[in-house]
Amino acid sequence: MVTGELSGATSGEREMAKRKRVLIVGGDAAGMSAASQLRRMADPGDVEIVAFERGPRTSYARCGLPYLLERLVESHDDLIARTPAEFAQRHIDARVHHEVTSIDTEARTMVVRNLDSGTEVTEEWDECVLATGATGVKPPIEGIDTPGVFQLRTIEESAALDRWIAEGARTAVVVGAGYIGVEVTEALLERGLSVTTVDAAGAVMGGAFDSDIGALVGERMRRAGVDLRLGAAVEGFLGDSGRLRSVVVGGEEIPADLAVFGLGVRPNTALAEAAGIALGEHGGIVVDDHMRTPVDGVWSAGDCVESTHRITGDKVVIALGTHANKQGRVCGTNLGGGDVTFPGVIGTAITRFGDLEIARSGLSESEAQRVGTSVVTSTSSTQTRAGYYPGASGITTKLVVRKSDGVLLGAQIVGGEGAGKRIDALATAIWASMTVGDLAMADLSYAPPFSPVFDPVVLAAGIATTRWDEARRKSPRER
Amino acid sequence: MVTGELSGATSGEREMAKRKRVLIVGGDAAGMSAASQLRRMADPGDVEIVAFERGPRTSYARCGLPYLLERLVESHDDLIARTPAEFAQRHIDARVHHEVTSIDTEARTMVVRNLDSGTEVTEEWDECVLATGATGVKPPIEGIDTPGVFQLRTIEESAALDRWIAEGARTAVVVGAGYIGVEVTEALLERGLSVTTVDAAGAVMGGAFDSDIGALVGERMRRAGVDLRLGAAVEGFLGDSGRLRSVVVGGEEIPADLAVFGLGVRPNTALAEAAGIALGEHGGIVVDDHMRTPVDGVWSAGDCVESTHRITGDKVVIALGTHANKQGRVCGTNLGGGDVTFPGVIGTAITRFGDLEIARSGLSESEAQRVGTSVVTSTSSTQTRAGYYPGASGITTKLVVRKSDGVLLGAQIVGGEGAGKRIDALATAIWASMTVGDLAMADLSYAPPFSPVFDPVVLAAGIATTRWDEARRKSPRER
Repeated sequence: MVTGELSGATSGEREMAKRKRVLIVGGDAAGMSAASQLRRMADPGDVEIVAFERGPRTSYARCGLPYLLERLVESHDDLIARTPAEFAQRHIDARVHHEVTSIDTEARTMVVRNLDSGTEVTEEWDECVLATGATGVKPPIEGIDTPGVFQLRTIEESAALDRWIAEGARTAVVVGAGYIGVEVTEALLERGLSVTTVDAAGAVMGGAFDSDIGALVGERMRRAGVDLRLGAAVEGFLGDSGRLRSVVVGGEEIPADLAVFGLGVRPNTALAEAAGIALGEHGGIVVDDHMRTPVDGVWSAGDCVESTHRITGDKVVIALGTHANKQGRVCGTNLGGGDVTFPGVIGTAITRFGDLEIARSGLSESEAQRVGTSVVTSTSSTQTRAGYYPGASGITTKLVVRKSDGVLLGAQIVGGEGAGKRIDALATAIWASMTVGDLAMADLSYAPPFSPVFDPVVLAAGIATTRWDEARRKSPRER
Repeated sequence: MVTGELSGATSGEREMAKRKRVLIVGGDAAGMSAASQLRRMADPGDVEIVAFERGPRTSYARCGLPYLLERLVESHDDLIARTPAEFAQRHIDARVHHEVTSIDTEARTMVVRNLDSGTEVTEEWDECVLATGATGVKPPIEGIDTPGVFQLRTIEESAALDRWIAEGARTAVVVGAGYIGVEVTEALLERGLSVTTVDAAGAVMGGAFDSDIGALVGERMRRAGVDLRLGAAVEGFLGDSGRLRSVVVGGEEIPADLAVFGLGVRPNTALAEAAGIALGEHGGIVVDDHMRTPVDGVWSAGDCVESTHRITGDKVVIALGTHANKQGRVCGTNLGGGDVTFPGVIGTAITRFGDLEIARSGLSESEAQRVGTSVVTSTSSTQTRAGYYPGASGITTKLVVRKSDGVLLGAQIVGGEGAGKRIDALATAIWASMTVGDLAMADLSYAPPFSPVFDPVVLAAGIATTRWDEARRKSPRER
């Protein structure tokens, strides 16, 4: 506890002691988690916490935006975790419409502009946290600023897209068939639009899933009526009277009342860069496992940092709320005098398209090839429940196993209700460096409403063990 | 492969070589898994496999019986995994209505009675597998054989119970509030009966769950209209004109048109005992991790054996289809010349009552106390999905953590749709001896349709880590 050294002091002496000032740049998941955790550890009399957010609100669930668009979530208010007023009650001064324009790490100051009044103030800090998040990738395609071309990164963008649909949009092009692209495609379909989804890669979910598994998602999308264009590039957006009219894809003009970008994100690092804080080779802010940047007194967490992949040891930039929250907590704990580490990521992710659940963890086969690890893979199909039990549906599981020792490196799941969250048992096994042989005999739960007598995870591990064993016998020396 | 040594032989020489004869006693999960696995490894020309089953059918899903009773499963045919005719196609001679009455382990013979003809034959074997299963516990209570008092261990018993209901039964007493008792209670409620469920223990699911978690299940049962009598003994069954009229519970006469026993099972070991095959202190057949009994040439698997609990090292008898299948496979592989082990169990189990999912793994707090392990526990409540996402429901998770090192020893979950199968991530962590601190930072999946940003497993592990840390500071030397 940072208050420890003052515990014997009188109240008068306490007021005399310098109150530490922690400024947080960015008022979303990582920043406000850091603030909240620090507040749990440090009294307001000892540590002042101020968070600056350039947008109009703090702490909201960005991952919920596709479901807001789909109207599964009623109001954007439902997505707001905590308002500035709620933070104020916890003695955290969260200021929206405040943009940090520069940071001086020598003087330990930052310039903050009030976006409502336009005034700028120089704020002093003892420690600061960069939680500047990420911005959706928007490639320099002709006509990209035509009205009717959207991203889905903020509540405002979601509301604008919603209005556009309400005003009569009937056809849409979604650019990108990754997580966001797939989720937005579903939302637009559910809103009654005809949707063309375009991806430059040859498969759906190309970056995260192997193409054989991505193909299962693609099939399901096509069955739902999506015009899926894979291996095709978006070449331009054509407008008409100041509104989008069509999207040029592979030379063909596809009529579209609206288009949505879902090409992933890149870290917001301009501020850090200008302040001389190191960026890594993947463009994220460099932090150690305590969430410290190389600059004394400057911390960072969330979508703007590079994390360590536990399997490859490589640095990766993965923008995901769950990491942002954990990293924010770690940062806040350490700021408050604690000593905890963020142990890295293994790329676990989950989404769904209609009733199809889609999940992955660890390395895909193509990722393993890219990093030069020799692997054995196996794909198995079974059911989510006992075959005779109502609601049983298909589940396909692909496992990636290190050839040298049988350790599970990666898993991909596609299947019906109850399939997706099974990735967590596999992610836990990957986290713990278990072999597939060990997992195949693990005591996982069984009852007819929940799984066949061989649970899909156990079955997949068993089949992978057999494949691994065969491969090892065939070429024992290859690694 | 057992065929290896004969691979150079001509077909004439092969016929001359002695064909190994493997007899299997019991034609359900363990026995037929052993048979099937052995057949995968050994050609019919080298190994003859005969299975004797005293009942009318092979390999059916006993765990599905409550759902057959509930009419969630349409026909008992749906529960049958494989018929003798199907086994015959795979060169496995499965003979139903054949009871093994004695085994001579010196002479390597067994006496088999054909229950249809009444004739007895002495069969020779080179190796045999005891897969005799278990029988429902039926305590010596007055009137227990009164028509209207049922168990639910076979399709025949299920059919008889079904007829009894169809003939107009309106009130029921379920004896035992463990897994089967809870499942049967639900089935009878769904069939429109008034149900009183009685358990001598003070809590629902008393053997497997701590009473604080069992209480949540009890509440749900009461809300569904169950008259739950805990800490009450069944003292007698009173009949009228040869039919059950009432059940005497704690001195009170409860009107009942039918009663069902769900008091767990005990291993069927009479045959083994008579043959001089060792039983363990829990009454199951003793086997090593290869599923060999101490008697040369005699193997055993399934509900009739004692397994090793991986955490306590103790022997336990757990009758569960998933263990029976795995043990059968291990047995079959080793019989076929392979070398695999069954690594033991950690007591993972799952069931549901209505929309309440109930799951556990590892040690409960009371089990840990019983074996003298000092633990820290924590209970956390959150939701199965993001709070704003449709269908989010409550989930309560109790974790049991070893005080000396923070290793996760046990987990109990009660909650709505999607809660139960989360036990598998916890079971995997228990299996891998992970600490709660490690699990709290594990990269488990997150997306709004599947979990809050802190998944219930991660959240539970985080809170448990804090509790464990506090407890360790308070009494660092206690173990």
